[in-house]
Amino acid sequence: MERSLREDVIRIFMAGVAAVEPGRAVRSHLKLEGDTLLAGQHRMPLTPGGRVFVVGAGKAGAPMAGAVEEILGEWVYRGLVVVKYGHLWPVEKVTILEAGHPLPDEEGVKAAAKLLELLEETTEHDLVVCLLSGGGSALLPSPAPPVTLADKQKVTSLLLESGADIGEINCVRKHLSLLKGGGLARAANPARVLTLILSDVVGDPLDVIASGPTVGDPTTFADALDILDKYNLLERAPDTIRTHLTQGMEGKHPETPTSGDAIFSGVINLLIGTNTIAIQAAEETARALGYQTSVLSATVTGETREAAAAHAAMTREIAFTSQPVTRPTCLLSGGETTVTIRGTGKGGRNQEFVLAAAIGIEGVPGTVVLSGGTDGTDGPTDAAGAVADGTTVGRAKTVGMDAVAYLNNNDAYPLFEKLGDLLITGPTLTNVMDLRVILISPENPES
Amino acid sequence: MERSLREDVIRIFMAGVAAVEPGRAVRSHLKLEGDTLLAGQHRMPLTPGGRVFVVGAGKAGAPMAGAVEEILGEWVYRGLVVVKYGHLWPVEKVTILEAGHPLPDEEGVKAAAKLLELLEETTEHDLVVCLLSGGGSALLPSPAPPVTLADKQKVTSLLLESGADIGEINCVRKHLSLLKGGGLARAANPARVLTLILSDVVGDPLDVIASGPTVGDPTTFADALDILDKYNLLERAPDTIRTHLTQGMEGKHPETPTSGDAIFSGVINLLIGTNTIAIQAAEETARALGYQTSVLSATVTGETREAAAAHAAMTREIAFTSQPVTRPTCLLSGGETTVTIRGTGKGGRNQEFVLAAAIGIEGVPGTVVLSGGTDGTDGPTDAAGAVADGTTVGRAKTVGMDAVAYLNNNDAYPLFEKLGDLLITGPTLTNVMDLRVILISPENPES
Repeated sequence: MERSLREDVIRIFMAGVAAVEPGRAVRSHLKLEGDTLLAGQHRMPLTPGGRVFVVGAGKAGAPMAGAVEEILGEWVYRGLVVVKYGHLWPVEKVTILEAGHPLPDEEGVKAAAKLLELLEETTEHDLVVCLLSGGGSALLPSPAPPVTLADKQKVTSLLLESGADIGEINCVRKHLSLLKGGGLARAANPARVLTLILSDVVGDPLDVIASGPTVGDPTTFADALDILDKYNLLERAPDTIRTHLTQGMEGKHPETPTSGDAIFSGVINLLIGTNTIAIQAAEETARALGYQTSVLSATVTGETREAAAAHAAMTREIAFTSQPVTRPTCLLSGGETTVTIRGTGKGGRNQEFVLAAAIGIEGVPGTVVLSGGTDGTDGPTDAAGAVADGTTVGRAKTVGMDAVAYLNNNDAYPLFEKLGDLLITGPTLTNVMDLRVILISPENPES
Repeated sequence: MERSLREDVIRIFMAGVAAVEPGRAVRSHLKLEGDTLLAGQHRMPLTPGGRVFVVGAGKAGAPMAGAVEEILGEWVYRGLVVVKYGHLWPVEKVTILEAGHPLPDEEGVKAAAKLLELLEETTEHDLVVCLLSGGGSALLPSPAPPVTLADKQKVTSLLLESGADIGEINCVRKHLSLLKGGGLARAANPARVLTLILSDVVGDPLDVIASGPTVGDPTTFADALDILDKYNLLERAPDTIRTHLTQGMEGKHPETPTSGDAIFSGVINLLIGTNTIAIQAAEETARALGYQTSVLSATVTGETREAAAAHAAMTREIAFTSQPVTRPTCLLSGGETTVTIRGTGKGGRNQEFVLAAAIGIEGVPGTVVLSGGTDGTDGPTDAAGAVADGTTVGRAKTVGMDAVAYLNNNDAYPLFEKLGDLLITGPTLTNVMDLRVILISPENPES
């Protein structure tokens, strides 16, 4: 069997996804050597008689917990990890609880309470392994009583409507929560904490992923009140919110710990799966297959079709002039774009990217474009993305489909379905946003 | 948090399932030490310049392939594994194709043809890792042309209707197939073959699991013709069948290789996940939790409610007399029972087992019974099974549900759903049949 450009592009994408598969991400960063746990660059001696607690939240939580159990074996005492409904995977000692996402629900509140109860057992001999991944914030809602989940959601909505930015919203929310903004690290104290993170946030900011339950927070109750005041929400927010924040400012509730707080001396936050890690794995495979590689960016955001047009322009340039890089070449990028919905069709940002790129490389020989969600889903479809080349627009035309019209209707799915060019990976349980791979063949087949 | 009997029983069950999770099963039997592959007790030096091909079929194929890639890294050249629709998992180099199960389809036929084409590339320097799991036979249909899939299905139906036993049916089918009955080992020759097997067949017979593609077959074309003759099917079977078998007997097609055939000198078949392995892992966990363990059998078959009655009788005996074993005790059994459907309800064999057992242990204090499918599904439900104790029948009564009536209507699901006693694990992608765990507490709480 001869290798095709299309086969290569899928293999390169899958190499990226496989590297951040939750279990593999844990196993490639965590090793047990005798009684010492090697976590990335860190060496953590386990205390004889000490116990390992496994906690966390996020869509990838179950397979991450399975990998931790596999590595730490008898060291694991017990645990509790909250996942989105249906995101299960067989584990032994760790209790996996399901809760609501993206909208948090009471199951999540109950789970968070149980998690806090479990952490009360920890001593200075213990290690808490905390597993965070996409969805972790919604899955572990822990409003400080008497604030309720509904109160918290209400103030979040008010802030969003008022135009508050994500930093402001997070400041308020962290001051209404028992776990976010370093709360989990405080609850785990005096045990040491090792947090393993699969990041689905552009740029991987530790304080934002799952709202930073084991990361210091420089903001204060006073800041939170100022933000409510700034948007004239002091009166409109639920009473419990104002009361809790005011009491907090008066010292009646513990302030979110800053990064200099002593509790963080025993805390390690380790990124084990990121868009960059996926890109690097994809890049290695591309090189092994003989391509020169260029990583354009791991943080592509913005309107999908514009990003696609830019990628297509670079592709054409290389295909026609071998500038700025020589062929065969693999271009890689990551991040997560958005789609401004104008039509009524079926698709997702990755399929839309590939369709827009297909229009941009129409007729260009020896090129192929793939974009896919590392979680295996793209919009409300069963596809992760799609694959296209210089013949895509023409092949669509021969079956009566006008690529531009389909793009304008945000209707990429039926087109790629018809052409057999959907990328179907099934759910991967991981999520480090999207990965785009463009290949330009060794030589121009028409030259 | 105090540990409950119920928490323990679920943990013990999950320990069994986790041990045969496809990736973990592969990783616990396969290690790379320098250039030597350790497969169970076998040491297989890899040949410098040699390549590893990964092939196979079965519902667990994708995560098994992922684990092989993780262990063998750059050694893996390429591969092709066929899975049931939707049974995907992210892998890098191995192509995962989806096909029909339990009814084979043309996608499976096409995949089998590609697999044979891939194996044509192998040389004596190469290693073929073959991954087999439940469903492998249906997923890799390879009728010897001009026999078609429809012809093969027709003769199978005729044999079933005629009362042929499974051994006879397999003899005929292996002689109509290019891959079954040692055919895959022949196609892989002269490369070495390492077959890793997750068994969903009671007793783990290597020649039956996935129809033994890398196992010798002592039967002949003549035997196959005799079987058709015995059931008066020589005339009624499709022409292509009779022709192929007759030509085979005349030496025009290669006979299925016997286990003494030279091609098997380089073939290792290794069971990496079995019901017994799951039971052993469950047993270890039960011991670690302080229970004495008794494995009743890994091969429980027959009518579900009768098996349940027997298990309940033993449970009562131990609970009341501490005979024949002392408490706290964990009874374990495996295998797969059947349910003769008499009612119109919703359930599965594991839920039916637990409901029947609940009736048998009604009022017995300090006991708990769990039965679950290791694949995470039980009948046409989203549950893997259920958990019950001496209070189950009474609790059902208080919500207006008569346990005996529900059992007689094969309607265990709504009862356990109402009581909150369903066992939900989500799909595990593995399958080594069912696992039953019964716990009898340290002391009789009423004594």
